[in-house]
Amino acid sequence: MTKATLTETILAAKKAKQTTWAAIAQAACLSEVYTTSACLGENALPPEAAEKVGTFLGLGPDVAEALVEFANKGEAASTVTQEPLQYRFQEIIYVYGSTLKALIEEKFGAGIMSAIDFTMDIDRIPDPKGDRVKIVMNGKFLGYKTW
Amino acid sequence: MTKATLTETILAAKKAKQTTWAAIAQAACLSEVYTTSACLGENALPPEAAEKVGTFLGLGPDVAEALVEFANKGEAASTVTQEPLQYRFQEIIYVYGSTLKALIEEKFGAGIMSAIDFTMDIDRIPDPKGDRVKIVMNGKFLGYKTW
Amino acid sequence: MTKATLTETILAAKKAKQTTWAAIAQAACLSEVYTTSACLGENALPPEAAEKVGTFLGLGPDVAEALVEFANKGEAASTVTQEPLQYRFQEIIYVYGSTLKALIEEKFGAGIMSAIDFTMDIDRIPDPKGDRVKIVMNGKFLGYKTW
Amino acid sequence: MTKATLTETILAAKKAKQTTWAAIAQAACLSEVYTTSACLGENALPPEAAEKVGTFLGLGPDVAEALVEFANKGEAASTVTQEPLQYRFQEIIYVYGSTLKALIEEKFGAGIMSAIDFTMDIDRIPDPKGDRVKIVMNGKFLGYKTW
Amino acid sequence: MTKATLTETILAAKKAKQTTWAAIAQAACLSEVYTTSACLGENALPPEAAEKVGTFLGLGPDVAEALVEFANKGEAASTVTQEPLQYRFQEIIYVYGSTLKALIEEKFGAGIMSAIDFTMDIDRIPDPKGDRVKIVMNGKFLGYKTW
Amino acid sequence: MTKATLTETILAAKKAKQTTWAAIAQAACLSEVYTTSACLGENALPPEAAEKVGTFLGLGPDVAEALVEFANKGEAASTVTQEPLQYRFQEIIYVYGSTLKALIEEKFGAGIMSAIDFTMDIDRIPDPKGDRVKIVMNGKFLGYKTW
Amino acid sequence: MTKATLTETILAAKKAKQTTWAAIAQAACLSEVYTTSACLGENALPPEAAEKVGTFLGLGPDVAEALVEFANKGEAASTVTQEPLQYRFQEIIYVYGSTLKALIEEKFGAGIMSAIDFTMDIDRIPDPKGDRVKIVMNGKFLGYKTW
Amino acid sequence: MTKATLTETILAAKKAKQTTWAAIAQAACLSEVYTTSACLGENALPPEAAEKVGTFLGLGPDVAEALVEFANKGEAASTVTQEPLQYRFQEIIYVYGSTLKALIEEKFGAGIMSAIDFTMDIDRIPDPKGDRVKIVMNGKFLGYKTW
Amino acid sequence: MTKATLTETILAAKKAKQTTWAAIAQAACLSEVYTTSACLGENALPPEAAEKVGTFLGLGPDVAEALVEFANKGEAASTVTQEPLQYRFQEIIYVYGSTLKALIEEKFGAGIMSAIDFTMDIDRIPDPKGDRVKIVMNGKFLGYKTW
Amino acid sequence: MTKATLTETILAAKKAKQTTWAAIAQAACLSEVYTTSACLGENALPPEAAEKVGTFLGLGPDVAEALVEFANKGEAASTVTQEPLQYRFQEIIYVYGSTLKALIEEKFGAGIMSAIDFTMDIDRIPDPKGDRVKIVMNGKFLGYKTW
Repeated sequence: MTKATLTETILAAKKAKQTTWAAIAQAACLSEVYTTSACLGENALPPEAAEKVGTFLGLGPDVAEALVEFANKGEAASTVTQEPLQYRFQEIIYVYGSTLKALIEEKFGAGIMSAIDFTMDIDRIPDPKGDRVKIVMNGKFLGYKTW
Repeated sequence: MTKATLTETILAAKKAKQTTWAAIAQAACLSEVYTTSACLGENALPPEAAEKVGTFLGLGPDVAEALVEFANKGEAASTVTQEPLQYRFQEIIYVYGSTLKALIEEKFGAGIMSAIDFTMDIDRIPDPKGDRVKIVMNGKFLGYKTW
Repeated sequence: MTKATLTETILAAKKAKQTTWAAIAQAACLSEVYTTSACLGENALPPEAAEKVGTFLGLGPDVAEALVEFANKGEAASTVTQEPLQYRFQEIIYVYGSTLKALIEEKFGAGIMSAIDFTMDIDRIPDPKGDRVKIVMNGKFLGYKTW
Repeated sequence: MTKATLTETILAAKKAKQTTWAAIAQAACLSEVYTTSACLGENALPPEAAEKVGTFLGLGPDVAEALVEFANKGEAASTVTQEPLQYRFQEIIYVYGSTLKALIEEKFGAGIMSAIDFTMDIDRIPDPKGDRVKIVMNGKFLGYKTW
Repeated sequence: MTKATLTETILAAKKAKQTTWAAIAQAACLSEVYTTSACLGENALPPEAAEKVGTFLGLGPDVAEALVEFANKGEAASTVTQEPLQYRFQEIIYVYGSTLKALIEEKFGAGIMSAIDFTMDIDRIPDPKGDRVKIVMNGKFLGYKTW
Repeated sequence: MTKATLTETILAAKKAKQTTWAAIAQAACLSEVYTTSACLGENALPPEAAEKVGTFLGLGPDVAEALVEFANKGEAASTVTQEPLQYRFQEIIYVYGSTLKALIEEKFGAGIMSAIDFTMDIDRIPDPKGDRVKIVMNGKFLGYKTW
Repeated sequence: MTKATLTETILAAKKAKQTTWAAIAQAACLSEVYTTSACLGENALPPEAAEKVGTFLGLGPDVAEALVEFANKGEAASTVTQEPLQYRFQEIIYVYGSTLKALIEEKFGAGIMSAIDFTMDIDRIPDPKGDRVKIVMNGKFLGYKTW
Repeated sequence: MTKATLTETILAAKKAKQTTWAAIAQAACLSEVYTTSACLGENALPPEAAEKVGTFLGLGPDVAEALVEFANKGEAASTVTQEPLQYRFQEIIYVYGSTLKALIEEKFGAGIMSAIDFTMDIDRIPDPKGDRVKIVMNGKFLGYKTW
Repeated sequence: MTKATLTETILAAKKAKQTTWAAIAQAACLSEVYTTSACLGENALPPEAAEKVGTFLGLGPDVAEALVEFANKGEAASTVTQEPLQYRFQEIIYVYGSTLKALIEEKFGAGIMSAIDFTMDIDRIPDPKGDRVKIVMNGKFLGYKTW
Repeated sequence: MTKATLTETILAAKKAKQTTWAAIAQAACLSEVYTTSACLGENALPPEAAEKVGTFLGLGPDVAEALVEFANKGEAASTVTQEPLQYRFQEIIYVYGSTLKALIEEKFGAGIMSAIDFTMDIDRIPDPKGDRVKIVMNGKFLGYKTW
């Protein structure tokens, strides 16, 4: 079962069961972002989490197996997305990319924020003027090695 | 004074004065991210904030004036950056773009996180296994209008 | 049913029934532009509107269901279209993009016209020298947040 | 005087004189959109209008002369803009391009909306929930010739 | 029947019948260029012409029907063709594009040659030094509207 | 003198002298298209024609010399132009490229129309419904060599 | 039979018969380069040569027929190949393109080497330090026409 | 002296001296192709050859020095050239790339023709039907190493 | 059997047999990198090695046959990969490309490291601060030929 | 002093002093690769190393200062290089990218080789059949975090 088929199978089961990513993540005992990304084929689940997701969705062992496999991360995305929700993040890079560089370097020195030793959380923040999306990215700082 | 000259002038003054973006932001009474982005030519400062930045850096009124002007946001950036620190954010879009879409839609319905009614903060989080970069993005949810 | 299959199904039913987008929109009690865009897979319909469209076209509940699903907006389009009718709008951006920026900023300050809280209407204006296409775009102004 | 120098000269005079595009357009006896686009180098003004703009801004005859010259329209624009205000119009093409085609063809038959025999107006519409940008495009329909 | 299937069907019938584009055009009572472009899916035929083409090629009514439908013009082409015959025309734009602009503007003023109210003819001109391809393009001049 | 400087010099002299491409071509005893393209740096003039152009415009021998030099043809053009007048020709390739191939092959066999042994003429054709641009391209047919 | 199917069929027959391009070319009484390119769908064979290739490979008349059809040359290739053997020729253009221009112009005047009235041969040259690939391209010089 | 300045200097001296690439190559005791490519900044000359070229052109020691420096080969070229003479070679790769691969593999096995241990010669071949350009490329075959 | 089918078949057999690339390479008596690349369709195996791989994986002779065929190397890769593991190597070229050029030229003179007469090895190096990936590339230096 | 000016200054001093990257690196007490990359503007040196390089080359304190500043890494490189020496590494990614992924995942699990906690060394390995370039990359393995 390819990752693409995996995603289709999970989306169909999720719809049939009328469940949510939040519930699937809870079943997996992992965060919503990580679990969803694995179901969408962009990450690999640990075997137990994969099994739990498969069981929760009432799917066969081939689904759990496919969830565990190494993902071919990032390759399904457009070079520059045209989908409005995702494009806003692209725009943030265009506008704030140089600012991110300046401030991370000021606070840490030469290096980067890891996108590997990295977590992300997405929350809905109630606000009388209109609820807000809060995204927290948290990545280990990696200083450039000098040798 | 163009925004490009503005940025050069501020960078030179900042270096001469051996100050930081944090201190400039404090002088402006605005956040670090917003103030830095304005100094880098990607945003416009309100007149009082612009004046305070100019005064703090010991620069003439043309700097404050240029800080207030409308920015040509995003145009200076590469379509896809090759600079490692900024690329990690591009990679996050490639890997987690579909997840961001799935979870924001699950939590809010059809719509986007605004990149306009939007704030971002960058912090250093001490961690014994290596300090971490914490980035909080907070944007108003905008539901697609039906008409 | 994917959005692509949805569109094919609707186009076939529309042709068989010899009806128009105007009539489908009227059935949906929504505007022509919004209804058509949803039928072409670029927007989601509210459940009642979706049901009305399905009933009007004599199609099964899977069509109404697919019409309600979140759209993957914008991804089906070419980066720069080569189709003449659509290209004229691309050309308008090339020629008048800087003018749009200058005038919206003059009238409103720093910010953008929302493409989310947004409506568009297309009309045929009779004219003895040749009828004209009138397109009205109406989007909420969003001022850049300062923080 | 190149069109690029022309634009710089006009922008400097406009700032020194603390005037607006609206006032310059009024001086030119032409619309805001057309006058601004000509000042930004994307259109040519008729000689009298050019002279009036030059006089209004207190600039020499070389400005009026340059305003009259044929423009190299569209070439200064990015293939796909990264500037947020202009990008929203790009996004509208991505999302509504196929809808524009479907509805114009339904209303008029095979053909296009002219971007040459074309006018555009931009207005601020007061709205208690936030003022709105209203853009009206009006172009002659041109049916594909059959021969 | 999609335009792509239409073209395949017509090419097969044309080959089986051992006929030519010239004969098909004659049957359609239209020019060779227009008729061929419609058979290749790039234009729509008027109903009577479509019927005549279908009858001439001994094909069913679905062919005539598909010939009448709005074409998705230009989208099948490469951004820059690599096919030698078509590339020569691309090269002509590269080499003579600025010349076309200079001479059309000199002869007509600011504006364009319409590609919509447009005809093209292709002829073989006998020549003792080698026969020549003669292409005549004829498009209405459209002056930029000032408003 | 580079070709770029050559073009600037000629454009300035042409404007000062208030002359036309047609007059320059007449002075050169060559066609308008060829002469203009050489003045714009896209072709080389024969020495006598170059001298005549220089004399006609009252320019020094370095202009005639630069007009004679080999041109770096096509490199100054955009890969896909965004300038409306020139783009219409790009659009003609997108829409009629496959038709050009089909008809030239039908009339001549496998091969191409030369863009080297090639002439082009541009004329204004009076028409009560609006004057028309007539472009005649005439290139030697070159059959693919079999070996 | 499309050119793509043709190539697959010929490759399968060539493998089954354990023959070579050299032998197929000999059967066709044409050069190796031309015959191979036709079998790979990039050229058309004369009817007799096509028949001989079909007979030699023991294939039906549809193969000979497909070999004779006009090829859609060049369209199957990548814009810039990533395949190492072919890339070396791309690199030769990058490094020696300006040299080719300078020397052909010095030897012939303004013009090009035809890629249509053109032959190419590939040979293995024994060499004690390692055998060498010898490629001979031979194209008619075409001088730019002046008119 | 950069390679770009070097090329300009040599081109000016070559023109002043009214000499040819052939003569410069003879002075260098190297082939026309290699010598020209070095003068155009795409290769490095051995010190003695560089000195001879400098002396022949009556230029100072900085020219000889710059001729000896490592070249930044290939970077000045367009990704895909639009200049007609050079494009014909690009077209040859598009049309004959797969043929080159098939025949070199048949004659040598898996590997490539070196573009490093490589020579190229350009000759004018008189022909009553029009003189021809003959280009001989000769590169060492390099078999893929298995390990 | 195409190379793509070959890879799918091998991946399925490798999974069913629960074996590793290391074991397959050992069976082939070749390095891990070369064997894996051949199984992934990017290289050709010598006949005996191909047979050993086929036997080891319990697959039919068509697999061994396909493993021996010339590979269409590099064409399956993205122009610039978005997959994080592979992108890190792209980033190394962006950051260290000019350094590689400077140091190889300093140590060897003008030339390149062959990617054909080339080996690569990948190893896991235990390290208390986190194990490390060690990659050794070893290619023959090829000096540019002067002729 | 910008990084670009820094590099020019260092290259000029290195040439004047007739020294090598190896000697500069020795002066810096750092590796050749790291020191060279910093001198080429792609990395930052620690203050003492920067001072030593400045002193060794006989350059002023502004050079040492510029060497210490954060680099804008990777942005000066072409998206895909056309320079032959550097392209060979691009080709290695094209051909061996999927192999690198397969083997690193087999040896380590899901994750990447860090390009930040990373060293690289370049050596000349004498070989009677032609000396070889040996490149050792050594990066920390970073496993994808699950959360």
